[in-house]
Parts: sequence; C-alpha cells; structure tokens
Amino acid sequence: MNSQQANDDIDAKRIPLGEYIFRRLQSLGINHIFGVPGDFNLNLLDHLDSVPGLCWVGTRNELNGAYAADGYARTRGLPGVVVTTYVVGELSAINGIGGAVAEGVPVIHIVGTTARAAQNARLMLHHTLGEGIDHAISADISKPLSAATAYLMDDANFTKEVDRVIEVCWKTKLPVYLYVPLDAADILIDAKRLDQPLDLTINNDGQEQSEEEVINTTIDAINKAQKPCLLVDLWTSRFGLVETVREILERTGLPAFVTPLAKSSIDETSENFGGLYQGVITPSKDVKDAIESSDLILHIGRFPSDTNQGGFSYDLKGTVLTLHPRYASFGKKKWEGLSFVPILKKLLERTRRNEVEQRKQWFHADRAVAQAPSQLEGPLKQRHIWHVFNSYLRDGDCVIAEVGSSQFGTLTMTLPANAQYYTQIFYSCIGFTVGSTLGTLIARREMNLKGRVILFVGDGSLQLTVQEISTIIHNGFTPTIIVVNNCGYTVERVIHGPSRRYNDIDPWNYQLMLEFFGAPKNAKSRIARTYQELYDALGDEDFQASGQIQVLEVVLDKYDSPWNLTAVVDRVIAGGAASMRKEDAEHGRRRKVLDGTLTASGLSTSDL
Amino acid sequence: MNSQQANDDIDAKRIPLGEYIFRRLQSLGINHIFGVPGDFNLNLLDHLDSVPGLCWVGTRNELNGAYAADGYARTRGLPGVVVTTYVVGELSAINGIGGAVAEGVPVIHIVGTTARAAQNARLMLHHTLGEGIDHAISADISKPLSAATAYLMDDANFTKEVDRVIEVCWKTKLPVYLYVPLDAADILIDAKRLDQPLDLTINNDGQEQSEEEVINTTIDAINKAQKPCLLVDLWTSRFGLVETVREILERTGLPAFVTPLAKSSIDETSENFGGLYQGVITPSKDVKDAIESSDLILHIGRFPSDTNQGGFSYDLKGTVLTLHPRYASFGKKKWEGLSFVPILKKLLERTRRNEVEQRKQWFHADRAVAQAPSQLEGPLKQRHIWHVFNSYLRDGDCVIAEVGSSQFGTLTMTLPANAQYYTQIFYSCIGFTVGSTLGTLIARREMNLKGRVILFVGDGSLQLTVQEISTIIHNGFTPTIIVVNNCGYTVERVIHGPSRRYNDIDPWNYQLMLEFFGAPKNAKSRIARTYQELYDALGDEDFQASGQIQVLEVVLDKYDSPWNLTAVVDRVIAGGAASMRKEDAEHGRRRKVLDGTLTASGLSTSDL
Repeated sequence: MNSQQANDDIDAKRIPLGEYIFRRLQSLGINHIFGVPGDFNLNLLDHLDSVPGLCWVGTRNELNGAYAADGYARTRGLPGVVVTTYVVGELSAINGIGGAVAEGVPVIHIVGTTARAAQNARLMLHHTLGEGIDHAISADISKPLSAATAYLMDDANFTKEVDRVIEVCWKTKLPVYLYVPLDAADILIDAKRLDQPLDLTINNDGQEQSEEEVINTTIDAINKAQKPCLLVDLWTSRFGLVETVREILERTGLPAFVTPLAKSSIDETSENFGGLYQGVITPSKDVKDAIESSDLILHIGRFPSDTNQGGFSYDLKGTVLTLHPRYASFGKKKWEGLSFVPILKKLLERTRRNEVEQRKQWFHADRAVAQAPSQLEGPLKQRHIWHVFNSYLRDGDCVIAEVGSSQFGTLTMTLPANAQYYTQIFYSCIGFTVGSTLGTLIARREMNLKGRVILFVGDGSLQLTVQEISTIIHNGFTPTIIVVNNCGYTVERVIHGPSRRYNDIDPWNYQLMLEFFGAPKNAKSRIARTYQELYDALGDEDFQASGQIQVLEVVLDKYDSPWNLTAVVDRVIAGGAASMRKEDAEHGRRRKVLDGTLTASGLSTSDL
Repeated sequence: MNSQQANDDIDAKRIPLGEYIFRRLQSLGINHIFGVPGDFNLNLLDHLDSVPGLCWVGTRNELNGAYAADGYARTRGLPGVVVTTYVVGELSAINGIGGAVAEGVPVIHIVGTTARAAQNARLMLHHTLGEGIDHAISADISKPLSAATAYLMDDANFTKEVDRVIEVCWKTKLPVYLYVPLDAADILIDAKRLDQPLDLTINNDGQEQSEEEVINTTIDAINKAQKPCLLVDLWTSRFGLVETVREILERTGLPAFVTPLAKSSIDETSENFGGLYQGVITPSKDVKDAIESSDLILHIGRFPSDTNQGGFSYDLKGTVLTLHPRYASFGKKKWEGLSFVPILKKLLERTRRNEVEQRKQWFHADRAVAQAPSQLEGPLKQRHIWHVFNSYLRDGDCVIAEVGSSQFGTLTMTLPANAQYYTQIFYSCIGFTVGSTLGTLIARREMNLKGRVILFVGDGSLQLTVQEISTIIHNGFTPTIIVVNNCGYTVERVIHGPSRRYNDIDPWNYQLMLEFFGAPKNAKSRIARTYQELYDALGDEDFQASGQIQVLEVVLDKYDSPWNLTAVVDRVIAGGAASMRKEDAEHGRRRKVLDGTLTASGLSTSDL
C-alpha cells in the first residue's frame, strides 16, 4: 500500500493527531524517526504503528537522537525527526538542535509534553521545572533555536499548526519545534486535510523583477569573465541543488571549487571539480592560485564562517557573485530576500537554452589521488596517514569526519566517485559524528546506497557519545570506525595549553568497545601504531569488505596534528600578533580569531 | 597556606578575573570543579592553577559534568561548579542544569564565551549559532534555568557581578550562570575585593514580627497537639538544616517522617526516625497510619511533587504547619516571603530554652531492618531483592538510586547509621546518577568520609551516560555499581506500552564495562540471575570490602517491577478512571497524573 492509497483509505475519517503528524512526515518520504521514549511521549509513539512506511529508531540518549536526525537529514536531503519527552528529554537534545541551527540542517523536534489539563493547573509533575511553573517554559527555552514553534494547545488549529512548522522546516532548512501535549496526541481530528498537499515550494513571489535582474547579471558576468568559476558552499546541498549545479557545470564548462562544508557536493572525479578551497590552508597551491586569480567567483550557498574559510583568510581577487537562500549580491550590489533556489533552477533553464557560453575548462585540477610516500616506516604521523587512507576509499563510500584532527586530516583526502562526505566544521561540536553516523546509515539504507560508511573519530570526541555505537550495532549496520587515538584533545593542544592536564583524557580499551556494546562475535577490532600495521589492516580483504562493523584504532602522538590545523592556528596568531597585549604574549599560543583581535589586526570579514 | 593567607598575599595586587572567580569559589570551601575544556574556556581554566586548594575534574561530556556538579552539591552542601565552552558545551550541560533547577541544587555554570570584540563584530566563529547572530543568545537560552545570570562584558562591574551570582546561588540553592568572554578571563582586576566576604546570610530582614509570629505559632501548636510530628522534606538538607532539625528532634522527642527526596536527612537508626512517607505507597502501614493520624504535621522544606508525594496521595488529617524557603503557613494562614532558615535556627534556640515541651515518643517505628525471607531460590524478583540488599549496607554507606526501578526499590530499604542517600525522584531524568555519582565521590573524598558508595542503576538509564564510569575509574574511586538489568525501560512498561518495541533496549555486555573503560585488572564484575548467585556475591568478602571499583549485574524479568511503582501507577489509573474517556480506556493502562485528569477526578493537590 503506497502512501496515496493509505491516505485515500482514511479520507473522511477521523484519526488521532499523533497519527496525523506521522502521516505528514511519511508523506515527505521520511521512513525513520529517532528518539527516546518517555512518560509524556509513549502514547504519541503508539501512533507510529498506524503509519505504514515509518519506523522508530530508539537511540541511547536524546543528544544522539538529535545528532542522528541531523545525519539523516544531511544524507537523505529530507528533514530528520527526533522525538523526545518533556524537559528531561528535550533539554538533552538541545545541543543537537543547536548544531542543526548553526549548519542549517532541517530537523523536526517533536516533544511529548504534559497534558493540557495538567498545564492549566500547573501541576508539579515529575519532569517539570518546579512548583507552580508554566509548563510551556520548556518550549520557550528552545525558541531561539527554532525557525518555528507550534504549541498544540487548541484542537481547532492542530493540523494547521503541524503543517505550518513542517513547511517552515522544509523551506528554511532549519530546526522547528512541535509541542505535543500528552492528551493532544490522542485527540481525533479530521484526516481530510491530508489530501491537501503541504506547500513545499520555495519561490520569490512578488520579486520576479529582482530575480530576473540577478539571473541576467549572473549570465552576463559569466559570459564577460575571463576565468569564471563556481565556489560551491554549504547551502547548495541543503536545498537539494547539487544536481542543478552539476548540470550547469556540465553545460558551461566552468570549474567548481568547494568549501569544507560542501566537500562531496561536486564529484571529485568529475571534469569540473576544481578542488577544495579554504583560504590559506587550501591543501593544493594550484587550487588556491586558480580560484584567487579567477575574475568572477559565483559563490553558491555562501557560508562565511571562520573554519569554513580557513580563519577568514579568503583572498579572492575577482568579483564575487553570491547566491544564497536569503539574498543575492554582485560586488557591492545586494538583493535582499531572494532565494537562490528558483534562481538556480531558472539559470539552469537558460543554460539549457545556451544563454551561458560553453567554454573549455580554464583550470585543470590535478586528477591524481594524493598519495603518501610508499613504504613508510615507524610510528604513524599525521603528516602522511590521511593520504594512506586515500588508498582505502572506493566508489560510493561515505566518509564522516569528526571535529578536530579527523576533520582537518580528511579535508586533505581525495574522494572517489559518488562519495558522500561531511564534517561539522562550523558548529564543531565534538561527539557529533557518533550519533550522526547512525542517522546517515539509516538514510543510506532507505536510499539503497551500497558504499561503505567510514567514520573517522578521535578519542577525545568519541568519549562524549560513544553509546550510540550500540544502536549502530543492533540495527545491523557494518561501518568502519577509525578511532584516532592521540590521548586527548589534540585540536585544543594546538590552540592552547598543549601539556595542560585538562587536555588529557582517560585511556579506554577501544579493542573491547564493540564487544562491550554487544557486537556479533565476528566483528573485528584492530590497532595500528606503525605504518606497517596500518598497511596490513587496510590491505586486509575482510577489512576492505567491511561485512561486519569494525574498529581500526590508529595511535598517534598527542602533540602531532594535521598541518592544516597547525597552519590555521599559526596564521591566526601571526595575524593577531600586532594587537597582542603583553599578557597574552606570555601565554604563548593564542587563537586570535577567538580573541576578536582578528578584526583589529585588519583581517576584516566584511569584504569576503 | 590557607585561604585567608592566600588572600592576604594578593592584597593590593591585580589578578586576572579568572583567578578572582576561582578564588571566590575556593573561599566557599569548594575544592573541585567539573567540566569539559573547549576553545573558549582554555585560558580561563589556566587560572585554576593559581588557586591552591582548587582542582579540575574533566568529565567525559558536559551533561555528565553538570550531573557531577549536582551530585557534588547534594553531598557537600556547597555549590557544585561546572565549566563549559560556548554554545556546544553549555547546551550539552543544560539538562543537568534543568535537574538542578527542579530539585533545588546550587550549581554554578561558568561558560567561557567568545571574546567581547568578536561579540561586538558578531563574528561568525565556530560554535556560534549562525551568521550575524548576537553571541549572547546562548546565555538567553539558559536564562529560564538560572536564578541569576551575569554577562561579564564590562570591566567596571566584573567582580561585583561575580559576587552577585555566587550569592544568589548560595541563598536560593538554585543554578546561576556566569558568561565569561575569552578576553575577560585574563583582564587584571583589583584583588582587594576578595577581602570583603561574600554576603551569604539568609535572613528575614524587616519581617521580624512575622517571623516571631510563625515561631510562636509553631511552639504553641506543638505544645497543644496530642500527636505532633515532623515531616522532613527536600529543602531541609539543601539549606544545611539537617543538624538544626536533628537537635530540635532530640530536645522535643517528636517523631520525624521523611519524604523520598529527604531520605537520609534523618538518621534511620535514630530514636526520632518515624519512617518514609509517600502517601499510598508508603512502605510501612504503621508509618502511614501514624503520620495520617497525627494532629499536627510540621512540614519542613515542603516539596509537593507528584512522585515525592506518591502521586499526590497524601491523606494528612491533622493541621499542617509548613516551613519553606520562601513562605510559612499554618492551616489556611500563610506568611509569604519568609525563609525557614532563620526560623528554624530561632526555633532551636527556644527549644534549648525549653519553650517546647519535651515529650516521650508517641510513635515507635519498627526499628528492625526489613528482611527478605531467607533461603530464597530461583530467579531474582523485584519483590525481594531490595530487602536482600539491606544486608549489604553498613554504617556510613552512601546509596545513590537511579530513576525507575532502582529508585522505587531502594525507597523500601532501611538505611544504616550515618548513611547518605539520594534519588532524583522529581526531575526523574534517566542517566543522572552515573554523572552525579562522580560528584558525590569527589565530595566525599573532600569530606574524608569512609563509607562505601553504592550506585543502583538500571540498564535503561545507564546507557545514557555510561562514559562517566571512566572518570570514576581514572580518579581512583572504588564504588559498587549494581546494574539492574531488565532489558529496557521497565518503569515505562508499567506506565504504558509494556511490550512495545520502544521500551526495549539493546543488550550490552556489562561484564566488560569496567575493562573497556580502563579499570585496573583487579576490578571485578559479577552477575547474579538467581538468589543463590546474589547471596554469593553479597557474601563475598572482597565484594563487601569494595577495595576496587566493581560491578554486580542483577538480572530481572522485564515485566517485573517494584510493588510501589506498580501501585502508584495503578492507584492513579483508578483515581482517574471516573474521568477516563472511552478512547483512553481502550488504550489500557494510562497514567492519569500525566493526563491532568487527576484534578478532574477530585484528587486536588491544593489542600496538601
């Protein structure tokens, strides 16, 4: 029974509100939702069973549930959904919602709350925040993190409110919050509204003239430029524009560079792929020279954060034309309130009509996969291991890189065809990937993708959210988990206090991790301290097949860090040195971006 | 060097703000603070090293850091301190702060934030929440959970603001929030203010007449009553009044009952201890009859939540005289704004002057420790195991009970002399105790307490926060961890959806847990499925000595639950049955307290 038939069956019927919510979610194509059960959401969760094609994935805690919803959304291109219980559950999830706000990930946070009668009486029920308190305070806490909040308190607008927040989530790619009182979940409502499709169209209604102006400006600028290029950034994939951009590139012959937050948005084996641009820590000098010498940079889905832009170190000499979810700009000229979604679609149409000149690639990126020197010996070093890992990747693989060394290291890797990659380099919350990997695995199973999922995670990050390995195991997934073990927070050591006790962490026996969490007997854990051990592991057929969940613990020195991480910190220190106070200088390394002295030293972001 | 000398040395000196904050905390008697390092708090943490007698305890994640600070505060009777980094750290901790708000635990949350220059420029730094956003939004999110918030943005009021929030925390026993910009932590300020002691006195200034009236009323009521008693509740221990109450009891001969949130506030072996009162699920019928037949109940530190009061099932027939941190009441008469702290101290003075009649105990609680039948056989059952555990307890032990079966089960246990006990029965956030146990262990080490620490935690709860076992291990602590393994959320099964998939959890190999987290080789893990295995474990000398951290996994049926948990749910269903809608009835078990129909069915809380 497909979703349309199911909807026909229930037409003219009354269904519980909980079921209505889940039917709406399923109608978007969502097949799994995440979360933790709790007193105030149990009856809501029961209504899941009435919706064919929608399943529950219980997570070990709510933070990981939110991370999983985020990873699902990043992978599937649909909203991720996390269900929590009133206060104790939702507040545990809130940092995951923060990450979704920061990196623009559509996550629907559904909270089962106290019943309306209890709210009216301000009953001092467990999970509430004290005597005589307005129960809605919990939703208020989440409000600054929600693009829309619906308090389902009034039967008369239940369905309208549900639809509203889903639509806002879809159109903004930001988290929304649904406050579902215990009794409300069971209230019968008219199912007829399900026949009315959600309004998911993003357009620039009433601004057709500006839109046309932007498109004409874009086409004109490209055609006039000597060395135009694209710089593809975060929002492109978030708004489902990867295919649109791909076809534009194919039809125009322009080279496309990507930012860290857009890595894998352009196939790295494609003719048009120019390389990763990250200002001063761009891995390839050729790539850096190329984009910085381009006379027109079409910046699509711009996301101007410090880390995404190499410590605000862009040095683009050409004119920048920006297409963004909420504005467009060309040099100093700016059009506010224009979404790039219809603009890019129309630009593609006009490209198809050959209005944009097709030209030969003016920049040919080095297509060879970056290689480490062969036959390395001795202990593993950050300098080489990432290129050694290049040899492990295959077409269709998915690489997820945790914040820290893993993230900076993998940004220097070359992805094979049809690869997926992501790293949370803006929000940069350690522990994120362990939960998000679960979401990605669920999403990829829904999408029937065959490649392997490879998680690179440091010991410092893994400790925050390690329990979600269990859910990955017990849902039958078989990712490869590379544990980068360097005895602590290496990224923090680079920034400040390299030998301070606070940057150490307790040693765990990672070789026992899978067994502790209940992995099948044939799940294998390996350790590599030397290059030879790493070669042996990566060369092992079983390891390559990844037929079971597996761990490869890679041991590195605690003061060793990827060159680009060190470089970005050093650069920022140099940049801020002029304004360093004596006291600061005595402290040694100091991250001037954090200090805010970055702007004082003339490295303004305003002209990026 | 004691704290006063240290302060003398730095007199007339300028010290960094970070050091000032830590000196103030140390001056309260705090010796350890908890948290996770991050880019924006590293330089703040450096100032810890300048303060003798204050040490850092890194936790595996921020939620556990907040839980640890809570457990520390509950145990030490001083504020617990948790330090996190901007947004990603603080939002992870926020649910721990929620628990502290709910159960009135003084926790100081110090957040290292972006530098002021970066804030003024609204720089899009990593960890911020997006482009062009006011960085102070993070503190705004925490505001509903903070009794006071200080944004340290202006050098001129740095020290005044720091002092203010510490004083509010002390006087309200509620969490406060300190927003410390990266650059502010290093700013040199005049240390002279450290000579000026913090204002930590709680008084009823300007209300002396009301205070006197309450004290007179109290003495008069006690002297006139036939069977007066005390009902000691949560706020008593929080405000450090346990010793005051103990002496009042000793001098008056009144029996004292305790609520779940005050268990261990009265020594259970003392002459005055009446028993635990929890409405319909009071473990002893004699105790229930006694307090419900008392003609005057002096309710000290009243905390009228559903779970603390057995589902709002108090049936007190006598007049209630309530002494509370913010009011006093006698029957229908109420004095607003009066703190019980000076009132109880003055009451004690007058008791010492024999103004309260000393009488013989009118209620003699059964002093025998509740015993399970001997020589039980077969699989373990909730019905008996808690009384079996009674035999394990010794003078001075500390019992920490996680939400759920462990909590309801341990409430039926009899504590030995000088025992500490707590369970988070109001906020009821699963996973809390794993972090809070760390805080308790640290606090008890500071206090040089010798008893063992015994944590009862269910498998469902343990999974949320399991990593903190690592910190407990690596700080050399040797608690006994009783893992109540019943394959899921048994408390939720009782409430709703007993056989639903969402109430299952994935099985872990708990016998490997300690080894995975790096415990010493001699750390032992045991499993008990039958009574014989439980007797063997509890009877083992090594196990009793608890010289190393140890796990005892206790396997129970997933549908088995403590009688008092089942009873409170049943009662509430019965109580709410009259107002049950047909749809609800079809759903079977339904917790009417949650539904809010409790009040509709006449079980009002207003006269409790």
